Amino acid sequence: MFENIIKNVHNRHPLIHCITNYVSINDCANIVLACGGAPIMAEDINEVSQITSICQGLDINIGMLNDNKLSSMLKAGATANELGIPVILDPVGAGSSDYRIKAVQNLMSNVQFGVIRGNVSEIKAIAEKQGIHNIAAGVYETMQKNKSAMGVEAGIADKITDDNIKEMADFINKLSQKTGAVIAVTGGIDMVADENRVYAIRNGHKMMSLVTGAGCQLSALTSAYVAADKEHILESVCAAVSVMGISGELAYRRMAEVDGNASYRNYIIDAVYNMTDETLKELGRIERI
Amino acid sequence: MFENIIKNVHNRHPLIHCITNYVSINDCANIVLACGGAPIMAEDINEVSQITSICQGLDINIGMLNDNKLSSMLKAGATANELGIPVILDPVGAGSSDYRIKAVQNLMSNVQFGVIRGNVSEIKAIAEKQGIHNIAAGVYETMQKNKSAMGVEAGIADKITDDNIKEMADFINKLSQKTGAVIAVTGGIDMVADENRVYAIRNGHKMMSLVTGAGCQLSALTSAYVAADKEHILESVCAAVSVMGISGELAYRRMAEVDGNASYRNYIIDAVYNMTDETLKELGRIERI
Amino acid sequence: MFENIIKNVHNRHPLIHCITNYVSINDCANIVLACGGAPIMAEDINEVSQITSICQGLDINIGMLNDNKLSSMLKAGATANELGIPVILDPVGAGSSDYRIKAVQNLMSNVQFGVIRGNVSEIKAIAEKQGIHNIAAGVYETMQKNKSAMGVEAGIADKITDDNIKEMADFINKLSQKTGAVIAVTGGIDMVADENRVYAIRNGHKMMSLVTGAGCQLSALTSAYVAADKEHILESVCAAVSVMGISGELAYRRMAEVDGNASYRNYIIDAVYNMTDETLKELGRIERI
Repeated sequence: MFENIIKNVHNRHPLIHCITNYVSINDCANIVLACGGAPIMAEDINEVSQITSICQGLDINIGMLNDNKLSSMLKAGATANELGIPVILDPVGAGSSDYRIKAVQNLMSNVQFGVIRGNVSEIKAIAEKQGIHNIAAGVYETMQKNKSAMGVEAGIADKITDDNIKEMADFINKLSQKTGAVIAVTGGIDMVADENRVYAIRNGHKMMSLVTGAGCQLSALTSAYVAADKEHILESVCAAVSVMGISGELAYRRMAEVDGNASYRNYIIDAVYNMTDETLKELGRIERI
Repeated sequence: MFENIIKNVHNRHPLIHCITNYVSINDCANIVLACGGAPIMAEDINEVSQITSICQGLDINIGMLNDNKLSSMLKAGATANELGIPVILDPVGAGSSDYRIKAVQNLMSNVQFGVIRGNVSEIKAIAEKQGIHNIAAGVYETMQKNKSAMGVEAGIADKITDDNIKEMADFINKLSQKTGAVIAVTGGIDMVADENRVYAIRNGHKMMSLVTGAGCQLSALTSAYVAADKEHILESVCAAVSVMGISGELAYRRMAEVDGNASYRNYIIDAVYNMTDETLKELGRIERI
Repeated sequence: MFENIIKNVHNRHPLIHCITNYVSINDCANIVLACGGAPIMAEDINEVSQITSICQGLDINIGMLNDNKLSSMLKAGATANELGIPVILDPVGAGSSDYRIKAVQNLMSNVQFGVIRGNVSEIKAIAEKQGIHNIAAGVYETMQKNKSAMGVEAGIADKITDDNIKEMADFINKLSQKTGAVIAVTGGIDMVADENRVYAIRNGHKMMSLVTGAGCQLSALTSAYVAADKEHILESVCAAVSVMGISGELAYRRMAEVDGNASYRNYIIDAVYNMTDETLKELGRIERI
């Protein structure tokens, strides 16, 4: 299923148009380069359509959103849909403000996303607006209780564990059916679903939550993987999620006693740079559930 | 006075709303995570008030300012004041343009800041507008002469030394009385004052001035420390300033011959990540004057 | 020709006003500090003129451009021209959108640039609009064929080699005569020309193309070098290009097996920080052609 997927990204060298936040924009560009793609950042309404049209993937990330960027996202998204270019949505902090959740609704009404990737609270916020908040109510309640402790980095209170994995599988599977997008939810155990299949990915390290924009980086990486093989979106997303997790594991092994989250940030991208199909095969913990 | 202050930030895990410049925004987010807090960056007028309301601290940094951001800062500041959330002001480059100093006046007229942290030239620029520029005139004159050599990184010509420390103590103490904010001025010897007390902090390394946004990072760090214990703002600011300085010292010790300011930048954040109350106690050089 | 050029930048400590993109803005600031300069980032129309007037150099980079930034660039450029402050243009992605190439034409019509630095496709895009696209037609055709694979990082398909070096020399020499700016084109063999002289610089490492914004960083570095000695722009640009290339070489030598493009990014800036006139003399491969 994942034969040569890493090599393929390096060979195809997909160009990825990113409209993203400024916190992690540099890391997003470097991780796309690390995996074999090439990033181009452009967000002015006057050029986004043309930029998207020369790319193989479009990564839309709503961190630090404003109305100008939203208009550009809508325009770039329309172009991508017309040309059959896969579009990835990262609904950063969707649950943190009414403005962001309304923007997500606007985006989802007007753009067909190939992939939606977020943490549990972000994906829940989206699901609620899609009318499927009753699914996995137990998980949802836990989240509500811990909401005040979350922020955009989150994932601390709101993890997927073996206790709620079945509910989550059902939940994101239904969300995929509703949205037509592959859903990737990360935090603890990561999960990926399309309309028919659900995968659990048990890679990653808890220290990744102490690197700002690790989720944004994963979305950018996912965009490159999906762009390199748009006929196999589910597989590409699973591979990207696993590669990011393995990179977090390998990066942690490298940590010296004096290292902290700044060095760790670099080590993760370094590990993506050095990733091979052999390493993915050896360390990837992807299973269908 | 500083018992368990580091541990407290990790335990409270304060969520910090940062409205800041794009040069150091990634480092600011990572340093907040390093010390045990969580950052959330949002600057659109449509969401800042709501974002502030779910946070425990607000960090306002005027680097790369524009009118939209200024409006958002005013709105977020008003919300923070209403809810009793401490607000930190970093008047980056306040002395470099009329636009910035006017913005600072506007902010100070409309928002009650808990802390104002800047380098000597920035704090002087503020003081001048508060009508207390006659204080510490000797220090001020030195600054004027060296103004052309300064920029936002500065601190080179405009240091606090044992020769001017008494004047500076008097000066920032008066500025605190005038503004109601704890004043932290950094560069050479760092100083922190509230209306009654003044502290000198002799930590840090001169190489820190070669890391862009080291001051911005300190302000973000300070926001997390203050948010974690808003009943003890002066102590929290002193601790944050000392922690940053100690981190600069420890980071310098790690430097290999081929390392430069890019690795040093990472090592500083790494040191904040590894900081303990024991290290602060052992290496902190905080004295009341 | 390059005697003490590194030392000179450290001694003069030029203040550089950068109006640049947010992908590489942090790296641009740190590389300016690394070489002995000081950066100040400001882009609001209300302050750019005043900021430029206290600086010794102005770096204009059109990545992530929008109309507000363009207006500010024009205003800052006019101030710089009035005051005799050298202005560097980095036409990032000029060939990727009509919006950017029009912006470049607008900038070139209204601002006299001291230096224009870009990769082959960017410099070609400019030349076309200057009516000299027939020059070096062979190189140009190669580029057209490979256009879809390019993006802003590029340089992969569009390198200067010993096969096309004479044509390129002629081409950028003519472009310099047309524009009055020193032209620096980077990728493979780097080349620098003014109206009379052309230099080829054979430093650098192919891995530099996997660091986002390496070109932006070079433009920022070039701004500092030129600002430190504006009477010798051609020499300053050659030195900056060679220093960046040597830094890429030295950084590569440092790479451990687990390192990737994130660590490499830091190592390059570290190498700029540690650069000496002796190293430039020993490793610089600058020859007049």
